[in-house]
Amino acid sequence: MTTKSLPQPDREEIRVESVLQALGEPVRLQIIRALADAPQGIACGDIELPVTASTRAHHLRTLREAGVLSTRTDGTRRISTLRREDLDALYPGLLTGILSAPR
Amino acid sequence: MTTKSLPQPDREEIRVESVLQALGEPVRLQIIRALADAPQGIACGDIELPVTASTRAHHLRTLREAGVLSTRTDGTRRISTLRREDLDALYPGLLTGILSAPR
Repeated sequence: MTTKSLPQPDREEIRVESVLQALGEPVRLQIIRALADAPQGIACGDIELPVTASTRAHHLRTLREAGVLSTRTDGTRRISTLRREDLDALYPGLLTGILSAPR
Repeated sequence: MTTKSLPQPDREEIRVESVLQALGEPVRLQIIRALADAPQGIACGDIELPVTASTRAHHLRTLREAGVLSTRTDGTRRISTLRREDLDALYPGLLTGILSAPR
């Protein structure tokens, strides 16, 4: 089985405006919370979200292109993981602060 | 001289999506950085920004309505301060992470 990573910015290409914009949306925050609870990654379809498949794909792409998550294909599945190490290195405290927000 | 505070959400009304949306914009980040360096507050016109007065006013209102800053009128001046205590209580680490971002 070959795995392949979808395109994403390198750590030094990540911009704080893009990260904040990507995170400032309720469904995308839900995705981030689910990923934070699954360090080994989640198949995109397995995150419970109140949106259509195409909206889900759009939100996941927005988060990936901003540098918030990584997605690899694993056979026919797409597995996403939070880029916690990169985000913690760039903006120490940001992710923890967001995840501790009242829901 | 009477001072008056412009309307803003109470701490418990602040929503993380709104805060992130408000912060995810380059000019508004510039405002936040200036306010972070001036705990006593800054007159709105004194923040150097590459935008018109009406755009500046729009950004300041967006930040105030999201709960990120407070504005009081002091005679004819409007003085803004970062709501650091509220944001740190709600989202510990968020603001520090954003302010430590490479510019």
